[in-house]
Amino acid sequence: MLGEHELIARIRRRAGPPPAWVTLGIGDDAAVIEPERGARIVLTTDSLVEQIHFTRQLTPWRAVGHKALAVNLSDLAAMGAAPRASLLNLALPTDVTVEDFDELIEGFLTLAGTAGAPLVGGNITRSPGPVMIDVTAIGSARARRLLTRSGGRPGDELFVTGQLGAAAAGLALLRAGGVRSTLDADSAACVCRFERPDARVRCGVTVARRRAASGAIDLSDGLADAVHQLAGASKAGAVIDASEVPVHPGAMAVAARSNQDPLTLALSGGEDYELLFAVSRRQRRNFLSAVQQSGDLTVTRVGRLQSEPGAWLNRDGRLEPLGPGFVHF
Amino acid sequence: MLGEHELIARIRRRAGPPPAWVTLGIGDDAAVIEPERGARIVLTTDSLVEQIHFTRQLTPWRAVGHKALAVNLSDLAAMGAAPRASLLNLALPTDVTVEDFDELIEGFLTLAGTAGAPLVGGNITRSPGPVMIDVTAIGSARARRLLTRSGGRPGDELFVTGQLGAAAAGLALLRAGGVRSTLDADSAACVCRFERPDARVRCGVTVARRRAASGAIDLSDGLADAVHQLAGASKAGAVIDASEVPVHPGAMAVAARSNQDPLTLALSGGEDYELLFAVSRRQRRNFLSAVQQSGDLTVTRVGRLQSEPGAWLNRDGRLEPLGPGFVHF
Repeated sequence: MLGEHELIARIRRRAGPPPAWVTLGIGDDAAVIEPERGARIVLTTDSLVEQIHFTRQLTPWRAVGHKALAVNLSDLAAMGAAPRASLLNLALPTDVTVEDFDELIEGFLTLAGTAGAPLVGGNITRSPGPVMIDVTAIGSARARRLLTRSGGRPGDELFVTGQLGAAAAGLALLRAGGVRSTLDADSAACVCRFERPDARVRCGVTVARRRAASGAIDLSDGLADAVHQLAGASKAGAVIDASEVPVHPGAMAVAARSNQDPLTLALSGGEDYELLFAVSRRQRRNFLSAVQQSGDLTVTRVGRLQSEPGAWLNRDGRLEPLGPGFVHF
Repeated sequence: MLGEHELIARIRRRAGPPPAWVTLGIGDDAAVIEPERGARIVLTTDSLVEQIHFTRQLTPWRAVGHKALAVNLSDLAAMGAAPRASLLNLALPTDVTVEDFDELIEGFLTLAGTAGAPLVGGNITRSPGPVMIDVTAIGSARARRLLTRSGGRPGDELFVTGQLGAAAAGLALLRAGGVRSTLDADSAACVCRFERPDARVRCGVTVARRRAASGAIDLSDGLADAVHQLAGASKAGAVIDASEVPVHPGAMAVAARSNQDPLTLALSGGEDYELLFAVSRRQRRNFLSAVQQSGDLTVTRVGRLQSEPGAWLNRDGRLEPLGPGFVHF
């Protein structure tokens, strides 16, 4: 493995010149960016730790680099913030090769480029143990256009983007030794969702700019956890309609093969990185139009906030407590 | 050890209410802060990794928390940026107790409070190996008031704050099994410098605001490395006068006892976190007055930038190549 200066030089060569709002990019004591006029600075940080969030056996380095940034962009999306810049903090054991490093950086920078989150700085250090990848994403949003977890109100409907359980199904397929080239389309989509989640940035930003939702959160630890968090922060209760939860067909297939309830995968399977929105009746039409405007993303009404406390699952008219989500820690 | 939600709750209780410019602090998908009017956003990230940057045997948790933030504030200081906010990303193995955690957070938040860098967000995950503490510091500076590494010009004088080699001497004392309570004042100051570096924020910001320097860098890896970096970025050469380098008296004593050249400790001993400035003749008076204004920090002229390339040490009129600094990686 090369030294820190050489690795940084490799990143700079690959990254190319930064966009105009980056006053000072990689290479000084700190990076400098210009804030968007009239906007707030939105800040989030999240990490991928080897053996906890990924293993070298199951996930290619390029996917690891992509995912490390994507999980942060998902947090920005949930706030309705447009990406502005990113920082990358790496701790690498000596058995990571230069080729591994280049692949990781390639995955990170490709997404940084398409998402408009140029890498402006970071840090590389040695690790005596696992690979650790800490990313900070910096976004931009007008104060009155921000989406928060606490903005939901009793009576709001809950909408979720995409189809759930795909990432958990993808992980299950990889763990079962699924060979990528022989997977059917649904299964391959699940693996792809697990390895290279799409942060729903355009959707989050469009909904926020049109003030089309009262609150939002991203699904890092599953729908159930997101509902608990959003309802809790909004000081409301919530009911999810079991029959309305959009389960990914690949998750259905995995559940069938392993005799699992597909709904469990969809509710508690982490890492889907879809968005959950609380939308008032008054905002409904505006919300659906905003989602449509933001691309070919589906959105499904899965329940509602209510003044009675607690988070509940409505299964054929019977209410049961909504279980917790996926626990990373 | 408690779960992630409980640990975050402990931090929130200790942190108290954030200052007015924090629109949204700990607890949502991302934090939101207001940029200072007319200023740029300055961003830096740095990490402390157990066994690489600290060990539990030598450094108390409170000092680890302090240092994790201080090394980032030092980067802001070197840019002339005023701290605005901080993010904390922790990876913790299960053998870190709640008491350890509380101490670490106490060290971090105490410094965050005095430095005006409120903790606005972060992340906690499990580590299968070492403790890793990644911090992002967010600062604020006007574009034309920024200090960079590349701003130095041939003919500029080089000034360094404080006295050097103290942190390296402190580490040597701890490694030699020095009992804190029996250390003399100079030695205790060295241990303190190693454990709880003072980021020279006020000095960096004052010098930058008064446009009293052409360039600056902080001394994370020693004076020699800083001179190489600053001269290289400024496309200049540099000469350091050996007899002018301010060696900390504690470092002198440690060097004498171990038959080392005290200058080596001062030039290559990492982690002093002092500032190195390039100052033109025209700025000299303004610079010295700015440093005086910023507190009881000493500053010493240690050399100059020149058009002839290379970094040199002038030892009694004989030029020798200036060795590299401390290598972390």
